[in-house]
Amino acid sequence: MIIDCHGHYTTAPAAVGEWRQTQVAAVERDHSFVGEKGVIAVTDDDIRGSIESAQLQAQRERGIDLTIFSPRASWMGHHIGNVHTSKYWSQHQNELIRRVCDLFPDSFAPVCQLPQSPGEPLDESVRELERCVVEMGFVGCNVNPDPSGGNWEGPPLWDRHWAPLWDKMCELEVPAMIHVSAATNRNLETTASHYLGADTTAFTQALTSGFMSDFPGLRWIVPHGGGAVPFHWGRFEGMARDKGWDLDSLLEHVFFDTCVYHQAGIDLLVRVVPHENILFGSEMIGAVRGIDPDTGRHYDDTGLYIERSGLTEDEKRKIYFENALRVFPRLDIEVEA
Amino acid sequence: MIIDCHGHYTTAPAAVGEWRQTQVAAVERDHSFVGEKGVIAVTDDDIRGSIESAQLQAQRERGIDLTIFSPRASWMGHHIGNVHTSKYWSQHQNELIRRVCDLFPDSFAPVCQLPQSPGEPLDESVRELERCVVEMGFVGCNVNPDPSGGNWEGPPLWDRHWAPLWDKMCELEVPAMIHVSAATNRNLETTASHYLGADTTAFTQALTSGFMSDFPGLRWIVPHGGGAVPFHWGRFEGMARDKGWDLDSLLEHVFFDTCVYHQAGIDLLVRVVPHENILFGSEMIGAVRGIDPDTGRHYDDTGLYIERSGLTEDEKRKIYFENALRVFPRLDIEVEA
Repeated sequence: MIIDCHGHYTTAPAAVGEWRQTQVAAVERDHSFVGEKGVIAVTDDDIRGSIESAQLQAQRERGIDLTIFSPRASWMGHHIGNVHTSKYWSQHQNELIRRVCDLFPDSFAPVCQLPQSPGEPLDESVRELERCVVEMGFVGCNVNPDPSGGNWEGPPLWDRHWAPLWDKMCELEVPAMIHVSAATNRNLETTASHYLGADTTAFTQALTSGFMSDFPGLRWIVPHGGGAVPFHWGRFEGMARDKGWDLDSLLEHVFFDTCVYHQAGIDLLVRVVPHENILFGSEMIGAVRGIDPDTGRHYDDTGLYIERSGLTEDEKRKIYFENALRVFPRLDIEVEA
Repeated sequence: MIIDCHGHYTTAPAAVGEWRQTQVAAVERDHSFVGEKGVIAVTDDDIRGSIESAQLQAQRERGIDLTIFSPRASWMGHHIGNVHTSKYWSQHQNELIRRVCDLFPDSFAPVCQLPQSPGEPLDESVRELERCVVEMGFVGCNVNPDPSGGNWEGPPLWDRHWAPLWDKMCELEVPAMIHVSAATNRNLETTASHYLGADTTAFTQALTSGFMSDFPGLRWIVPHGGGAVPFHWGRFEGMARDKGWDLDSLLEHVFFDTCVYHQAGIDLLVRVVPHENILFGSEMIGAVRGIDPDTGRHYDDTGLYIERSGLTEDEKRKIYFENALRVFPRLDIEVEA
């Protein structure tokens, strides 16, 4: 059994992007635009067509049984518009994910995006999380640590601003992947510097503050292998020792995926991070789409690196699915369904 | 011969910090405050005392012959005050570094900070670079890619804003370490998330833009092992392939230091980055000051990891000093002096 904890619906039918473009154009004219949810005209066949020859085909080729699937991260765009437009967009995106999972229940489990909006409290996000989990059977959520789109203008993750969301996640027993969206700051390339920097930043905010110990059931997945963190494990370990930060306790809450696209990177990840804290992921179909001439396989075919990393069968089982079942307790139902 | 390419004067005598505190207090009262350069009353004995039992003792214990030494990075504080106050502060800091190198000419070679200031052109920085190199024998400079202090409000490194500085560096045959200063944004911890994120961002700006090919002699050292870059080498390689970015050409310009504080990190670095592009560094005495219980040595005693990384003597020689002599052509004189 292989569960990929990190997949986004990057091949959504064109009508989805068109709906969003219309909405974005409206908020560009008037930032306080509300509009209405309306309808995105996508048929089940459209969805099948967008999945079968893309994500699902790759999953089959790579032996991935199930992908924990969420809306396209770079499209979340929390910095665009306001909490109303963010709500409608999130609802559509989440309902679309639900439909993908209904059409392919054995291959996908749903994770939602949240209608975050800069400067706004998280009430709407809590509501949408509850709707997705309780009414629609979602197993987790994506939380954007920087809804300002690369300007880091909002409160850090240890700020009480975030507490209602952490409380609701604990109550519903769902984890969050801490995943930014597109960068608007021209200093930052979205999927390279912004994603990797944000991963490192989110981990550091949790480590330096120790706030997660106030939320015993809170679980995060820090994507892209944790950004720079495992490569600088000695730096973080040493700083923690110098400053009295509790790295061990943090690892009861924080997990890394395997979205690291070369052998040496995965070898390092499994060497320094406890295997209980690693979840298989590929973020396929995502930021890197080409084939590595050295392996003849896609760069993001991360199972190849896991297979060649010298792990025992027991260790691989943890990374491939056992840890995911622990981190996503609601997944159990989905897997057996 | 071992050259450490990355040392900051973090143990400067108290009078230095006091001078700066007075200046900072003045600009806090009046942002347009100019003041005057004045004098920082530090004797040669003060300097000896601050170096001999600290940096120099550690160099001797670790077998480091020469450290390329620059003002404390987190103190550069380009976001504080204005271009005038930044100029006086930089001049003092650089003159202090010159005095350290005069007192211990066999053990230190000088690198300067620049009087950058948000929103200002780089004229003063070009002038200070020329003064330091031509009049004072400096071998390189530190360039802050984000003088706004963690808010990334200025132009990216590929913007023409920076061209006068790159031109002057090429003319003078000095490289730059691309090193941020303290973060003012409370989302960012200075030496963990901000430093590592900035390293990744600087590299990405160079890779995506390809601008360095317009400056054939331009050389950067990206510190802290390149931030997240080597850990995500496959990601950068794959994205470069997808998007037509020229990673090979970039490596004619960009070098990484070895400020990665554990064995697995250094093993990865020397496995994926061409050895010609790695310069020995420790950033000692810096962000991590404790002892790793696993090795019984300081976390930042990076020579230990190099020794245990399985490199040949030829490969180690490149990393320990041959690459540094190539990247810092003006160092030659210093080494032989």
